[in-house]
Amino acid sequence: MSKQNIYDNDTFFEGYQAIRKNERNANNLFEIPALFSLLPDLKGKTILDLGCGFGVHCRKFAEAGANHVLGIDISEKMLAVAEIENSHTNITYLNLPMEDIDQLEGNFDLVISSLAFHYVKDFSDLITKIYDRLNDNGSLVFSQEHPINTCHAGGDRWTRDADGNRLHLNLAHYSVSGERESVWFVDNVKKYHRTFSEIINILISAGFTIDKMIEPLPENKILEEYPEYRDLLHKPDFLVVKAQKLKKKD
Amino acid sequence: MSKQNIYDNDTFFEGYQAIRKNERNANNLFEIPALFSLLPDLKGKTILDLGCGFGVHCRKFAEAGANHVLGIDISEKMLAVAEIENSHTNITYLNLPMEDIDQLEGNFDLVISSLAFHYVKDFSDLITKIYDRLNDNGSLVFSQEHPINTCHAGGDRWTRDADGNRLHLNLAHYSVSGERESVWFVDNVKKYHRTFSEIINILISAGFTIDKMIEPLPENKILEEYPEYRDLLHKPDFLVVKAQKLKKKD
Repeated sequence: MSKQNIYDNDTFFEGYQAIRKNERNANNLFEIPALFSLLPDLKGKTILDLGCGFGVHCRKFAEAGANHVLGIDISEKMLAVAEIENSHTNITYLNLPMEDIDQLEGNFDLVISSLAFHYVKDFSDLITKIYDRLNDNGSLVFSQEHPINTCHAGGDRWTRDADGNRLHLNLAHYSVSGERESVWFVDNVKKYHRTFSEIINILISAGFTIDKMIEPLPENKILEEYPEYRDLLHKPDFLVVKAQKLKKKD
Repeated sequence: MSKQNIYDNDTFFEGYQAIRKNERNANNLFEIPALFSLLPDLKGKTILDLGCGFGVHCRKFAEAGANHVLGIDISEKMLAVAEIENSHTNITYLNLPMEDIDQLEGNFDLVISSLAFHYVKDFSDLITKIYDRLNDNGSLVFSQEHPINTCHAGGDRWTRDADGNRLHLNLAHYSVSGERESVWFVDNVKKYHRTFSEIINILISAGFTIDKMIEPLPENKILEEYPEYRDLLHKPDFLVVKAQKLKKKD
């Protein structure tokens, strides 16, 4: 069973819900602004959100004028919250692993995913399935953990000075793709490390054209308010990518 | 004066010539194979080699059937060697900084550069000038130091165990683009760090389509013969990129 569902674990779910309720988390401060900066005009569009979680983004897409939003997630618990907190006449929530989108009918103008792809084992298979679900001139916009993050394979991640300030990241095994085990509320959360070139080449091989990439940093005013995010100057946490399925020439 | 010419410094030149004469250096073992793996068929092509040095690549291009190869370099000393060791009826060597290729007449089917772009201060300006010099459906193929390398800003690069084995890279300042000073035979060699996304986005903004990227590793048989290159599993030394100037649709 290659599809990991940590989200329906009670311990994980409660921990995750707590950080997402903190409005000043890293996602809200710089991952989501970067992701949304790459979105096309959503008016009249059909949108597929992979790993939609609580449906917060789905509601934003619907409110921005999307014609229809399909939010899928492997976690029934997450979707139960989504149905209560973020329902909308133009949104459908569906309990489906993103690895199974070849089972869906119909195509989309935009496929979006926030911080979920690093849990997927077979990235090439996923990207091919996304390409097949997109209309011509459709876009894929996704964020994931940065490859400099996902390469971590245990041990201390940072070297600190006597005051606990982070001096540098302890980078190892960057060139070794594959599974990494980590602890995130629960033990044995599996993530998959892929190098930068691997991510890019898989997208291109599937037929996508790379449109833009962002390694987001907090704006200066956020750095002043939250000096702990200065560590991101050493190492970005996230990678955000926009790719397009350009219409083939006749 | 933004165009750096370390190569005509006597100390640098002699040190550089010595490592390049060692046929088993990192360039020959995995940078050059990766670079050449991205080249199109060279028969009948016009080629511009930016930072051609001793002209070793230029001769290979000419021998592979290129119609004409223009090798440019900022270093007169390098070109003097090129004229002696790698002359060919289809090659012209010219003493010109790559930042000045807008002064050239005529266009090229292929622009290539090996390990020189990280010395260029204004990457965006260079890439725009390259785009302007390429024919429709022409390609740019280049290698440079890997962004995980170029970000280094002094201090120990590696943390080692008691036996001197490299445990991990000390990664810092990745997200801070700009000038880095380093020592390579001589003091104060200036390199310019750019993040992955910056390199990609500058290429795309200039009009290029990204075709493939490689973060080269030595093959297993080389790792067996030269175990010191196992460190590359922690951190690749080089980044190799192929980008295309696709003909605009009518």
